[in-house]
Amino acid sequence: MDAGTRIERALSRALSRSEHSGCPEGLSSATRYAVFPGGARIRPRLCLAVARAVGDDRPAVSAAAAAAIELLHCASLVHDDLPCFDDAKLRRGKPSVHRAFGERLAVLTGDALIVAAFEVIATAGDIAPRRLRMLLLALTRASGMPCGIAAGQAWECEQRICRSDYQRAKTGALFAAATVAGAASAGADGELWRPLGEYIGEAYQVADDIRDVAADPEVIGKEVGRDQLLGRPNAVLELGMAGAMAHLESLMGSAGGSIPDCAGAADLRVHILNEAGRLLPAQLARPMRVVA
Amino acid sequence: MDAGTRIERALSRALSRSEHSGCPEGLSSATRYAVFPGGARIRPRLCLAVARAVGDDRPAVSAAAAAAIELLHCASLVHDDLPCFDDAKLRRGKPSVHRAFGERLAVLTGDALIVAAFEVIATAGDIAPRRLRMLLLALTRASGMPCGIAAGQAWECEQRICRSDYQRAKTGALFAAATVAGAASAGADGELWRPLGEYIGEAYQVADDIRDVAADPEVIGKEVGRDQLLGRPNAVLELGMAGAMAHLESLMGSAGGSIPDCAGAADLRVHILNEAGRLLPAQLARPMRVVA
Repeated sequence: MDAGTRIERALSRALSRSEHSGCPEGLSSATRYAVFPGGARIRPRLCLAVARAVGDDRPAVSAAAAAAIELLHCASLVHDDLPCFDDAKLRRGKPSVHRAFGERLAVLTGDALIVAAFEVIATAGDIAPRRLRMLLLALTRASGMPCGIAAGQAWECEQRICRSDYQRAKTGALFAAATVAGAASAGADGELWRPLGEYIGEAYQVADDIRDVAADPEVIGKEVGRDQLLGRPNAVLELGMAGAMAHLESLMGSAGGSIPDCAGAADLRVHILNEAGRLLPAQLARPMRVVA
Repeated sequence: MDAGTRIERALSRALSRSEHSGCPEGLSSATRYAVFPGGARIRPRLCLAVARAVGDDRPAVSAAAAAAIELLHCASLVHDDLPCFDDAKLRRGKPSVHRAFGERLAVLTGDALIVAAFEVIATAGDIAPRRLRMLLLALTRASGMPCGIAAGQAWECEQRICRSDYQRAKTGALFAAATVAGAASAGADGELWRPLGEYIGEAYQVADDIRDVAADPEVIGKEVGRDQLLGRPNAVLELGMAGAMAHLESLMGSAGGSIPDCAGAADLRVHILNEAGRLLPAQLARPMRVVA
């Protein structure tokens, strides 16, 4: 089964409890709306690619890890889009959750998706205790305090934003969790894989900054030019387009160089190259080298 | 060490990561504000009382379970108080989190406290895998879909509220988790202890309805008369004060009768009696019998 199918099935399974007749219909619909259809699923794909690189000996566990990572991501999008934050009208090419279901269900959808992320791990079946604990810690570190997603968003409420702390927490933490959890789900030492996720996370942030300046909103399914409007740090506004592109290429090089020795390292490099190409607006995409 | 001290220490430990220098100060302050000083801590006290009744052979684990239960409770209060829900001005005798820190930090505080609940379990140290999984499942079931806290709050967004589903999810689920997790933390079969939590949860809801009608806002630290104002089900409005009191007494009787055989059953009955007395407004409190 290809990675995309595994991810969608694991996400469906994770949300199957929402279809129970005792679940209020609005919450059931809103959580599914927030998760399906997905975006690029870049974080769970990365998680599975790392699991595969180290042997993926428990596919049910790696699929659960990938689903949990994506559920935390979806939860953060829903809360980040709320009127009190970005007040985003569009997400993934359709009205944001609070526009479609109201603000109250948007708050609860985020909450329920965070809980579902931990539930999918707890119910993944045959997980060795050490793996289970590594997975849980990867998820809590990526989503809580002091430097997970909630902390990253909370930097937006501070008078002075520490840009690197902000981006590392808001965007980087979940990429790091994707590589850590992918490795841990297959019995490898997750922490050895953290630098790879951190580099990719930073590269993703730069690519996101580039898209915010240069992409077609029809293509990326959300508004553009938001960073400047909201006074947020953006690599293109700081470094210029050429500088941002060079920084992105350098980060992808560091990412490739950080891959720990393992049987599937070569395939993983190809995966990362392919994914990097998908991050950029079409008119800017060009072949990138990943240093071996 | 008495139960109250154990709970406060476990909660402090659970929030210690928020004091890390990389954590944005607003989120760090708001999460502590939401948790300290506490209310009656009735759920974690129940969790520890059940753990004690079955031997409490891993006090670090039962303390972590109690803290996790209280963190989920605090998270739900913060989100429930938000302007889009109850828009509560007061909580525990001081301004609600969104009044004190703004709406954005209130959303993130709830998120961070949910994550902290799972983190405190994942970091509790020497937990046998079976206990760890039972604790995780008790927490996810109590807080997510189809019938945890998020689902309970989501009933408020439906055109037609199923009162029993609503109250069982919004209030009962976490009491049930308190008894299940207390038992599981000490190696007992948590599910045998679920009915006790469910009866106490229902009794608590009735007592809360009574307080909403009859209490002094100065004493309970929040506004009264909200149920009628917000069109929510309330046992006093449905059954009258005498009927509600009789229903409460009957529920406490069923609670006492549901306690599984164990060494500490007698002490646990005393604990439950004492706690029940604390639930009612002073002018209504009278000795209650718990059927053996």
